[in-house]
Amino acid sequence: MVMEKVSRKPIVGVIGASSAPESTLTLAEAVGKAIGAEGWHLLTGGGGGVMRAAARGFSSADVTVRGVSIGVLPAEDADSANEFVEVPLPTGIGLARNAIVARAAQALVAIGGCSGTLSEMALGWQFNRPIVALSVSGGWAEKLAGTRVDGRYEAPIFDARDVPEVVDFLKGKLP
Amino acid sequence: MVMEKVSRKPIVGVIGASSAPESTLTLAEAVGKAIGAEGWHLLTGGGGGVMRAAARGFSSADVTVRGVSIGVLPAEDADSANEFVEVPLPTGIGLARNAIVARAAQALVAIGGCSGTLSEMALGWQFNRPIVALSVSGGWAEKLAGTRVDGRYEAPIFDARDVPEVVDFLKGKLP
Amino acid sequence: MVMEKVSRKPIVGVIGASSAPESTLTLAEAVGKAIGAEGWHLLTGGGGGVMRAAARGFSSADVTVRGVSIGVLPAEDADSANEFVEVPLPTGIGLARNAIVARAAQALVAIGGCSGTLSEMALGWQFNRPIVALSVSGGWAEKLAGTRVDGRYEAPIFDARDVPEVVDFLKGKLP
Amino acid sequence: MVMEKVSRKPIVGVIGASSAPESTLTLAEAVGKAIGAEGWHLLTGGGGGVMRAAARGFSSADVTVRGVSIGVLPAEDADSANEFVEVPLPTGIGLARNAIVARAAQALVAIGGCSGTLSEMALGWQFNRPIVALSVSGGWAEKLAGTRVDGRYEAPIFDARDVPEVVDFLKGKLP
Repeated sequence: MVMEKVSRKPIVGVIGASSAPESTLTLAEAVGKAIGAEGWHLLTGGGGGVMRAAARGFSSADVTVRGVSIGVLPAEDADSANEFVEVPLPTGIGLARNAIVARAAQALVAIGGCSGTLSEMALGWQFNRPIVALSVSGGWAEKLAGTRVDGRYEAPIFDARDVPEVVDFLKGKLP
Repeated sequence: MVMEKVSRKPIVGVIGASSAPESTLTLAEAVGKAIGAEGWHLLTGGGGGVMRAAARGFSSADVTVRGVSIGVLPAEDADSANEFVEVPLPTGIGLARNAIVARAAQALVAIGGCSGTLSEMALGWQFNRPIVALSVSGGWAEKLAGTRVDGRYEAPIFDARDVPEVVDFLKGKLP
Repeated sequence: MVMEKVSRKPIVGVIGASSAPESTLTLAEAVGKAIGAEGWHLLTGGGGGVMRAAARGFSSADVTVRGVSIGVLPAEDADSANEFVEVPLPTGIGLARNAIVARAAQALVAIGGCSGTLSEMALGWQFNRPIVALSVSGGWAEKLAGTRVDGRYEAPIFDARDVPEVVDFLKGKLP
Repeated sequence: MVMEKVSRKPIVGVIGASSAPESTLTLAEAVGKAIGAEGWHLLTGGGGGVMRAAARGFSSADVTVRGVSIGVLPAEDADSANEFVEVPLPTGIGLARNAIVARAAQALVAIGGCSGTLSEMALGWQFNRPIVALSVSGGWAEKLAGTRVDGRYEAPIFDARDVPEVVDFLKGKLP
C-alpha cells in the first residue's frame, strides 16, 4: 500500500572529538542512548571518540523505538565509520563535511570537543540550529555553554548540566 | 544491552530527473519498491520526479524489512524534500550535492535523467560505484546503458531492461 | 590611492582529462595561450594532462595582458598543482571540486575528456554556463559538441572546430 | 616563449565579519594594503565588511607588485562579490565555502569576527594553517589571539597587536 506521506523522526546531531577522556565518552554514550529512547535519529561525523560513544549508546536503545544512526564521513569510503554507525555516508569532501553535519541535523549536542567540534558549533550557530552544550564534558562544549557565538541571535548555546537537561532542551526545540 | 557492532543494510542510490514522463515515474516507483523489498536503504537527491517516485515506491515496501529513505538535499532546510523522504539531509551546498549522492551510495540506479543525473553517473563512474541504467526509461540512462564512460574500468554501465534485472545486478554488487 | 572599484577580467574554465594524447595536449596548449592573449583569467582543475597543457600555453601569453592561471585542486595542499598554475587553490573536497570548477568559471572550454570532464560539462550545463567543445579533440568534448545535454536550454554546447572558433564563441558570451 | 614553470606568490587569507565597526574596517584595510605591498595574493570570502575593507586596501597597493584579490563566494554567481574583488569565484556551496577559504589560503589573518570567522579559524587550525589574530580588532580574533584551539599543535594563534606584527608573522610562515 502506498501511503500519502511518510513520518519523519527528528534528527539530532552529536558533535565531539574523535578522542576524549573516559568520562566524556560515558556522557556521550548516555546522550546517544537517550536520543534513541526518544525515538529520534542520531547523526554524527561517524568517527571515533565522542561520535562512536554516542552511536554505541544509541544502538542500545529499543530498536522498535529509535531511528537510525547516521555517520556523515569525511572519507571516500564507508570503511572509516565506527562500528555503531548503521548508515555510513562517505562524502569524500574531507573536513568540509563539518558544514554538512551542522546543517543536516535539526539540533546539535556538543560534548567535549576540539577544533572540529568548534567549527561545527560555529557553523551550526550560523545555520540557526539549536545547540546544547554539556558543560561538564569539558572542551569547547564547556567553553561555549551559556554563551552567544555572536550577536545574531538572542538565545545562547544552552548550558546543560546533565543528560536529562539535554533531552529537555531538545524536546523543546524539535518539531 | 550494548552490542559489539550494528548491522548495516546496503545503501542504493536512485538517480533521475526532478520531472519525468509518467512511464518513467512508474519504473522509478517499481525500482524503489524492489529496493525496499530487498531490505536495503534508499538514497536519492530528495527532490521531485524520479526521486519522489522511487521514495514513494520504497515507502510501500514492508517496513519491517526495508531500510530508510534518505534524501541528500541541495537546500539549506528540509522543507524541500519530497513527502516520501524519511531522513531529509539538507546539505546547503546546492547541486554540488550531486557529488555526495554519487559517493555515499554503494551502487547507483539511473532512471531517465537530465543533466543532473548525467553528472551523477559521471561522478559515480569516477568514484568506482557500480552503476545500472534502466535503458527503457529514456534520458541519459538510455544513452549510457551498456557503455563505458571512459577507459578506466572494463565493465560498462549495466544495461537493465526491467526491474528484476536491476535487482539482479545490485545483488551481485552489494556486500 | 584607493579606487572606487577594481576591474575584472573574465574567467574562462578549461576542462579535460588528466592524461590525453599529444594531439589533444597541443590543442589545449593553444587554447590556453589564446585565453591569455585575450586578457582573460584561466581556471582549471590544476592537474595534469589537458589542465597542465592549457596552463602551460597560458603562461606563454604576454604577462602584461593576460590574467592569472588558477587551479581549483581536489587535494588538501598545493603540491599537487601542475607547475604552470600560478594560483593553486587546494579545496580538500576531492572530486566534488568539479562542481566548483563548473560554477566558478564564466564559460567552459571542453577539450577531449573522460568522466571528470563529463561531470563538469553536465554541471556547467545545469549552472547555465556557456560551454564550447573542441570536437576535434576527441573524448566527451567530441561526443557532446553540438548537442544539448537536456531540454532546459535551446542553445547546444557549441561545436568549435579550431581554436579561433573557441575564442569567437567566448568573445560572444563573456561580459 | 614557454617557461619551465611559473612563479607563485603566497596566498594570504583575511577572515572577518561581513559587518564590523569602523575601527575594525580601518585595520582590515591596512592589513589588505600591507599584503599587497608584500607582493602576495589576497584571498577572502568576497563579501562585505572586513572582506571588502581588506580587498579595498589591497587594491591600493602597487599593482606591479601585488598579486590579485580573490573572493571565494558562497553564492552561485559573481554578483555578490564586493567591488574590490578582482577574481570572484562563486562556489554555489553556501557557507560550506568557509572550509575552502580556510584550506586554500596558506596563512590566515583574523580581524574581528563573528560565527563565520570562528568557523574559519577552527577549520584553519584543523588544516594546520598558520593563523594570526589582530587582537585589537575585537570579536573572535581578540578572544582566540594567543590561545590554542586544541592540543594538536604547540604554537598558539599568534597575537598581533598591529599591522607590522601581522606582516612579520606572515613573513616567517610563508614560503
